[in-house]
Amino acid sequence: MSTDPLVIFTPSGKRGRFPVGTPVLTAARQLGVDLDSVCGGRGICSKCQITPSYGDFPKHGVTVAQGALSDWNAVEQRYDDKRGLKAGRRLGCQATVQGDVVIDVPPESQVHRQVVRKAASARAIEMDPATRLFYIEVEEPDMHEPTGDLERVARALRDQWDMQDVTAAFPVVAQLQKILRKGDWKITVALHKDGAGAPHITAAWPGLHEGGLYGLAIDLGSTTIAAHLTNLETGEVKASSGIMNPQIRFGEDLMSRVSYSMMNPGGDVEMTRAVRESLDALAQEIAAEAGIDTSLILETVFVCNPVMHHLLLGIDPVELGQAPFALATSDALSLTAADLGLSALPASAQIYILPCIAGHVGADAAAVALSEEPGKSDDLALIVDVGTNAEILLGDRSRVLACSSPTGPAFEGAQISSGQRAAPGAIEAIRIDPVTKDPRFKVIGCDKWSDEDGFWDETAQTGITGICGSGIIEAVAEMRIAGLVDAKGLIGSAEQTGTERSIPEGRTHAYLIHDATADGGPRITVTQGDIRAIQLAKSALYAGARLLMDERGVDKVDRVVLAGAFGAHISPLHAMVLGMIPDVPLDKVTSAGNAAGTGARIALCNVTSRREIERVVREITKVETAIEPRFQEHFVNANAIPHATDPFPELAKLTSLPQVSFNTGGSGGDGDGRRRRRRG
Amino acid sequence: MSTDPLVIFTPSGKRGRFPVGTPVLTAARQLGVDLDSVCGGRGICSKCQITPSYGDFPKHGVTVAQGALSDWNAVEQRYDDKRGLKAGRRLGCQATVQGDVVIDVPPESQVHRQVVRKAASARAIEMDPATRLFYIEVEEPDMHEPTGDLERVARALRDQWDMQDVTAAFPVVAQLQKILRKGDWKITVALHKDGAGAPHITAAWPGLHEGGLYGLAIDLGSTTIAAHLTNLETGEVKASSGIMNPQIRFGEDLMSRVSYSMMNPGGDVEMTRAVRESLDALAQEIAAEAGIDTSLILETVFVCNPVMHHLLLGIDPVELGQAPFALATSDALSLTAADLGLSALPASAQIYILPCIAGHVGADAAAVALSEEPGKSDDLALIVDVGTNAEILLGDRSRVLACSSPTGPAFEGAQISSGQRAAPGAIEAIRIDPVTKDPRFKVIGCDKWSDEDGFWDETAQTGITGICGSGIIEAVAEMRIAGLVDAKGLIGSAEQTGTERSIPEGRTHAYLIHDATADGGPRITVTQGDIRAIQLAKSALYAGARLLMDERGVDKVDRVVLAGAFGAHISPLHAMVLGMIPDVPLDKVTSAGNAAGTGARIALCNVTSRREIERVVREITKVETAIEPRFQEHFVNANAIPHATDPFPELAKLTSLPQVSFNTGGSGGDGDGRRRRRRG
Repeated sequence: MSTDPLVIFTPSGKRGRFPVGTPVLTAARQLGVDLDSVCGGRGICSKCQITPSYGDFPKHGVTVAQGALSDWNAVEQRYDDKRGLKAGRRLGCQATVQGDVVIDVPPESQVHRQVVRKAASARAIEMDPATRLFYIEVEEPDMHEPTGDLERVARALRDQWDMQDVTAAFPVVAQLQKILRKGDWKITVALHKDGAGAPHITAAWPGLHEGGLYGLAIDLGSTTIAAHLTNLETGEVKASSGIMNPQIRFGEDLMSRVSYSMMNPGGDVEMTRAVRESLDALAQEIAAEAGIDTSLILETVFVCNPVMHHLLLGIDPVELGQAPFALATSDALSLTAADLGLSALPASAQIYILPCIAGHVGADAAAVALSEEPGKSDDLALIVDVGTNAEILLGDRSRVLACSSPTGPAFEGAQISSGQRAAPGAIEAIRIDPVTKDPRFKVIGCDKWSDEDGFWDETAQTGITGICGSGIIEAVAEMRIAGLVDAKGLIGSAEQTGTERSIPEGRTHAYLIHDATADGGPRITVTQGDIRAIQLAKSALYAGARLLMDERGVDKVDRVVLAGAFGAHISPLHAMVLGMIPDVPLDKVTSAGNAAGTGARIALCNVTSRREIERVVREITKVETAIEPRFQEHFVNANAIPHATDPFPELAKLTSLPQVSFNTGGSGGDGDGRRRRRRG
Repeated sequence: MSTDPLVIFTPSGKRGRFPVGTPVLTAARQLGVDLDSVCGGRGICSKCQITPSYGDFPKHGVTVAQGALSDWNAVEQRYDDKRGLKAGRRLGCQATVQGDVVIDVPPESQVHRQVVRKAASARAIEMDPATRLFYIEVEEPDMHEPTGDLERVARALRDQWDMQDVTAAFPVVAQLQKILRKGDWKITVALHKDGAGAPHITAAWPGLHEGGLYGLAIDLGSTTIAAHLTNLETGEVKASSGIMNPQIRFGEDLMSRVSYSMMNPGGDVEMTRAVRESLDALAQEIAAEAGIDTSLILETVFVCNPVMHHLLLGIDPVELGQAPFALATSDALSLTAADLGLSALPASAQIYILPCIAGHVGADAAAVALSEEPGKSDDLALIVDVGTNAEILLGDRSRVLACSSPTGPAFEGAQISSGQRAAPGAIEAIRIDPVTKDPRFKVIGCDKWSDEDGFWDETAQTGITGICGSGIIEAVAEMRIAGLVDAKGLIGSAEQTGTERSIPEGRTHAYLIHDATADGGPRITVTQGDIRAIQLAKSALYAGARLLMDERGVDKVDRVVLAGAFGAHISPLHAMVLGMIPDVPLDKVTSAGNAAGTGARIALCNVTSRREIERVVREITKVETAIEPRFQEHFVNANAIPHATDPFPELAKLTSLPQVSFNTGGSGGDGDGRRRRRRG
């Protein structure tokens, strides 16, 4: 045995001695080297491609001679003729060991290949999807030993792939006989295996299926539904698409949808039907965009807030609208497309819904936790997913806390007088000269600032149409920096601020950013009402964060992560001037992009991560903002810009905010107005 | 401890010492005494009723004093006021042990109570259904420790009933919040537990559910669909109902339905829809008859032949029409009503379908094996389920064999010139005087023979309309006994037989049983064609039995069991004269009634029996009649009445058949005709 050739695999470094004639795939399996194969070594799937290296390898202590692997054989030649093998590549199931050899497994031949996420975060997703393809050769039926075709398929999976106690989805059973005969008893099955459950056949194709296998990661938001179509073999995102949530017509925000269900018998059923129909449309659209058939989409992962979660599942969300905000079910759910009545997907397509953290903190927050991993952070991280509802996580290795806070839609440009959704023509960034008090700005669809040459030509098409979420945050913060707004949020008059852009509006004032009325366009201003709306939103966000910090017993955090599609566009400086987030060094504020969507994609591509987030969610400390008396106190104190009581020393290093006050005795009325609205 | 009171339970004889104050239910549980409880000892379900016995019990070595149990308490008083407790009864959860006591558990308080089957067989069904009711008290939601309502229900089942890892059917999850709140956090759940799978909630009700829990045992035959609605708590059959299988319009027998599917694209889908619709109608009808709501039917067991099995499941049966007769799936199946598209039942209602034995030997044969247990027989039993297709089992403790044989519908009165289904007016029994050659007969709906006083008055209403299956068997056998038919099956002429009842019909003869043409009624005869049809059917049946005997290496069996609704009406003597069954002593021929239906009811009422029949089916030796060359040989030899070559010594002890021969050279043509038909 000791004279058997030595086989060394890279990059794993795994090594062992094998008799002359051992196929490379066999050696890899015995050593536990991650080398893919769908056909089980029959030389037809080409997933097991490897690259032998020749010459001296002092590091490994071997010299690899030219004849270290068997000669190129007929199967490899046929494959090369038909599809083309890259230079130097061999099929691991065909090439056999003839002498000491160093074999490299290229990334695309690894089952558990890593896929680098597009987002800034360095963490890669290791491919280990719940559903995988297996090619099998099935025994033909025999009258003397009668067994069902399904039972022989299960036996083939046991004998050829060591898969025990395989079951099959009911629609597959009905089609199996035709598929087996069409494939001449050679078929490929999609096998779903998630946790302790038995492997489950969810699709089958005649012969070797080369059409691929896909999954959808869906971030089902109150406003938009975003989906990523992912190749489950490679991890590649084939297409991304988003549509508006059609439930908007029943209510803009979550609570108005819950109210709709309370006030209208059958309203929940209507909303469930609406969202399911649009999910079907989205699945069809995204599959068409990627040029694949929806029958190949066999896994779907959903992340969503609790109200969307219940409405997706067909559960009346009425309990989520009143204390104690009881979820019908909080654990992760494994379902089928048929269960959800999604007709665009195969009935047997598997659905995984991440667990909810609490009645107000949903599977979307769990997905952020999966993506950003606060529980693995060495320093104390505050993660804020900014949307109509803000989900807030605070944690490090010792403990993770979570809450949600009702920020309302102001951060998304809604309920803002000149507000609009992020679309071409919307002001997304703004700077106000502290001396002249004049603004310059950028609009979506143009890379130039408004004071740069060519800006007006380039924006002539779209016009300047309004202010989006990130624009309004910058506008309010810049107004505060420029001394146009005081710490209490009052806009000064033209006399107080020294600019004619401060224009009267009833008993209050507004700041004029751009007047296009001469050209038939809008007049874009920031009104006192807009400032109040932003103050309400940012106070809610900050109060939620402070509540978690209280619970944790700290008065500062080490870093802040802004998540959410919108979070990616928020300027950290302006967010801090506004007092949206606690004071931290500016370089400690990072954006995680659409972390919930990333979390969905991780759960889609890696089945182990599902157990991980289920465990993490159980261990998270849940804080309910709605019943904490301190929340109201934090909320009131956070109303000031940046804050009435908390110091912002890091912010002070960067900019000193003017000590102005425009209170002329009328602010008490504003305060009352705010409180009335909060109660409403 | 040794001075603790002694508690002795009857009829189990289990005994133990318990501290004063121990509730009787607690003592029973600790000793493993089978004492029912749905509410878990809360004094509301009354399932745990017991009867204490007082006085001297030398057999048990105790004397029970009057104060051996605690006094009648308020809970018992309330229950007695409301519902009434039988004299001497106590509630086991309320009465506590105060001294040595003997406690009888009446049959209705046992969970695993035995239900004596209606059929002749002595075996009782032990109640142990897959679905049972559990009353629980659920923790209310708490904002500080948020969990879903479902998760708290699962926790209650774990803590209060030791049920681990409970899951819930999707439709139940959607309704759970309303049910919990309506029941003020006290609910009853129906929990399905079958084998190693996790317990699964399939229904829930507010408070203590007292509406019962029901199951359907369905024998899905080619011609009729019979259902028994069974109370799953008591085992009582609440209603039985049958309807015609609507697939008859696509073809009378199995092969014509398979052909319909082959010739008509979508024909299988049409037949599946037809049978599912009629199952829905049947479920509604039987529930209405029993006065219960279909929502209470949470378990259904199906037994059926392989073609019905596939069509029920929505699988094209085309493969069952051609060698090698491959089943799509042969193992037992656990499904839901939603899987089968049965809308009359709750979507989460559980369906169990018994395993198929082979491509021609279905779940109905498995059900017969479950009911008749040939594998537990000390002597060698031949079990014949007579229908359009005969299922045949042969076995004893050492080994069981099975086959099916295509008898055709002649035994059911079809394809017989004066044949009709068993209904009032049909001749069901007949005797022919060996001297006068005149018949006397009985018709369904009248207890008298036709030569008894009052017969004609009593049958005036229905008339004499035809011959049913058992009637034609007796008629042919009696014709053979009376010397009207020879061993080859030829009917003699009037000259040869000496009776004018032998009337010419073309080149052959017919025997006139009754001529009502003068009154506008039919002329009832047995024609040469009828004899041929019966010969074909009985030869197929006998040949199948002989094939199993060959396989087993025997030339006689110890006993014969006739199963099937029709089997109950066959006269053993006449069956043996005809040579339908092998020669055995007449008292060794018994009827098992509808054994397939009984098997379905056993699987419905006792979950352990499902594992039992799954094991038995795996061990059965399957014999395929269609490919055995000896089958054809046995078939030809069995054409004679009773048989060309096999001796019938037991029959000879009872009657000596006339040695007549009516062959006038024309029988060869008949033989050819028969062979042509067999091939066709």
